[in-house]
Amino acid sequence: MSDSQQYIENKAQCARVAFYQLAQASSHDKNAALQRLADLILANQNAILQANQQDMQNAQAKGLDNAMLDRLQLNEKSLAAMCEGLHQIIALPDPIGEMDEFRLRPNGLRIGKMRVPLGVIGMIYESRPNVTVDAAALCLKSGNACILRGGSEAFHSNMALAKLIQQALHETGLPENAVCFVASTDRQHVGDMLQAVDLIDVIIPRGGKSLVSRISQESRVPVIKHLDGICHVYIDEFADKTKALNIAFNAKTSRYGTCNTMETLLIHTSRAAEILPQLADLYATKSVELRGCLKTRAILPHIQAASDEDWATEYLAPILSIKMVDNEDEAISHINQYGSHHTDSIVTENYTLANRFLRQVDSASVMVNVSTRFADGFEYGLGAEIGISTDKIHVRGPVGLHGLTSQKWIVLGDGQIRV
Amino acid sequence: MSDSQQYIENKAQCARVAFYQLAQASSHDKNAALQRLADLILANQNAILQANQQDMQNAQAKGLDNAMLDRLQLNEKSLAAMCEGLHQIIALPDPIGEMDEFRLRPNGLRIGKMRVPLGVIGMIYESRPNVTVDAAALCLKSGNACILRGGSEAFHSNMALAKLIQQALHETGLPENAVCFVASTDRQHVGDMLQAVDLIDVIIPRGGKSLVSRISQESRVPVIKHLDGICHVYIDEFADKTKALNIAFNAKTSRYGTCNTMETLLIHTSRAAEILPQLADLYATKSVELRGCLKTRAILPHIQAASDEDWATEYLAPILSIKMVDNEDEAISHINQYGSHHTDSIVTENYTLANRFLRQVDSASVMVNVSTRFADGFEYGLGAEIGISTDKIHVRGPVGLHGLTSQKWIVLGDGQIRV
Repeated sequence: MSDSQQYIENKAQCARVAFYQLAQASSHDKNAALQRLADLILANQNAILQANQQDMQNAQAKGLDNAMLDRLQLNEKSLAAMCEGLHQIIALPDPIGEMDEFRLRPNGLRIGKMRVPLGVIGMIYESRPNVTVDAAALCLKSGNACILRGGSEAFHSNMALAKLIQQALHETGLPENAVCFVASTDRQHVGDMLQAVDLIDVIIPRGGKSLVSRISQESRVPVIKHLDGICHVYIDEFADKTKALNIAFNAKTSRYGTCNTMETLLIHTSRAAEILPQLADLYATKSVELRGCLKTRAILPHIQAASDEDWATEYLAPILSIKMVDNEDEAISHINQYGSHHTDSIVTENYTLANRFLRQVDSASVMVNVSTRFADGFEYGLGAEIGISTDKIHVRGPVGLHGLTSQKWIVLGDGQIRV
Repeated sequence: MSDSQQYIENKAQCARVAFYQLAQASSHDKNAALQRLADLILANQNAILQANQQDMQNAQAKGLDNAMLDRLQLNEKSLAAMCEGLHQIIALPDPIGEMDEFRLRPNGLRIGKMRVPLGVIGMIYESRPNVTVDAAALCLKSGNACILRGGSEAFHSNMALAKLIQQALHETGLPENAVCFVASTDRQHVGDMLQAVDLIDVIIPRGGKSLVSRISQESRVPVIKHLDGICHVYIDEFADKTKALNIAFNAKTSRYGTCNTMETLLIHTSRAAEILPQLADLYATKSVELRGCLKTRAILPHIQAASDEDWATEYLAPILSIKMVDNEDEAISHINQYGSHHTDSIVTENYTLANRFLRQVDSASVMVNVSTRFADGFEYGLGAEIGISTDKIHVRGPVGLHGLTSQKWIVLGDGQIRV
């Protein structure tokens, strides 16, 4: 066993012990630790910002781009937002221990389910130091122990926050190893976390597509992740025009870099001549580049042709591909084939078509008359989210506290034996 | 791409198309296909039994052991049981399309969940031909397409059943590719199924431990599985003696080869002298070999010593390890450390200790005053089960129709855009 393997195994075993200790903690205990952490962050702003300054200087010296620097930088406002996030998590109901679905069996057994934590969660993430606090808080509130491995560029910021997290756990009587940190930038540790079957129960990567893709390919531990957000809005034959214009404009332009941004607009042939020119004018005010199918270009002759590759591309940029479809079936087929099963919305006033869309589109979030931009944990009322899942196994869509839990069966008897 | 990869990719793509077609099928359509299948099995008993006879002859020629032959053999009674299984699945409520947890958000959005199939399920199993019919029926009822790869020793039986399944689908207007068969005994196909990320959504292995273990190690597709059943009964300080004797005897001796059989008995020190000698007499009537810890052997001096390996062994045989513990914490720690997170039961009349056991034992099924032998899908009222999961991700314990589903988010709006 290599030193790195040994290091990860030790961390995971400490986390496992802490996980079993956490099973005895009440919601009150867990909330007290989160409250203490919020207080400590406020009281230690200077130390955190100093550590962050060190990371920023290193990052600038390494020539990291502005987007990276922006994600890395902390200030009083972002620390206040961290604390606000903690208060929101404190306010959420504790899912652990909830019992439901109890049924009485003919032999007198009462059988139901209890909501329980997953165990030890491995978080692997990039530059944003606020993930350290979010992830620690969500894992703790849901009764899980976690092992956090942040990006090397945020190392000092993360370690400053780590120190406060451990202090908050210690001062409120919870096991410090409930939140473990990989206190090294050795890349081998990531590889070893991904191989730690039976030691780590689930891996959650947060970061750019290349990180997430590499992790999901290499990992032998189950992964909760999302790779792409190729989201669609379909303007149906029976769409309300005002809603269609508003939603199609908002879904593309309110932010370009988010995974719930629309990347392809589908529009029913019968409405294209009426709606597309006005939409094109709206997009022009934001300099959005349009790329269209053959029929679209008959109406918007000045735009580029969209290739097959466009339908499968998450631009994360002011670019939009547009395709005309002859009916809802064609729209649904296109979405299921080219989309990333993230979030897709139909604009229609037709009850039956809305219901067919909801049923047949195979995505984590399916919407009627709403901008796709609403697909996130806060908007869904989950409180904070630890990520979004485009997988179908375990959890789909925004992942909040419930996504970090499982259910075990509870069987209550009175001496029953099986004949 | 190898021929085998191409073969599996073609199957998976056909299954995917069928999966999307199935989204339009009503419960009535799916039940009609299952009913037709039951009728066809009864009407074609001779053809099935002839094919099975061929498998039996090949298996005997190859020198397969009696247990294998027993699992392989079909007769009129087992075919009737298959049909009875189909009728039970027909009678189950269809989980697909269920909508719940709808909440009204402050911005007027109504957000909830819809239960949906997983997609394309790959089943890899060994000798029992009845798995072919069970798996096809459970996947179809839950709206999933499936690719079935049975054991080579059951090839002719499976192909005879496959023909009827395809006929039933065809005659009732459902896509035949909703149930695909790997009609070849090429072992490479299994390997290629396990690599078919994005083509197959989940793999469910059914068979011996070596098969399941190999599959879960190799698979890049998520796997729902259980490996070991190291189940415990803990006789607590406050156990009712009669219940303790009945449960401990039943959990070990009602069947030896099942995964929910007790393999280790834990008993509180204060009750050992009173209960263990009587239990030993009971086990002696069934020639169960006992292996004990040091303290146990002070009371039962004639039995073997249990090693550390015993605590981690699933005997699947008339052997039982026994350990005395000083308190409930020690029992829970032992179970969480050495058990397989399958099924564990406490015998106690103490309310508080029962509740602590339920909360702190980290197993798929946790029981009070019940024989562990009840841990299966039929006993839990799920109808048929497609397997048991000792994992925590996605589904724990017996896996019925619900375990083959996921939930997507439904967002109902009225033109909302995000500011």
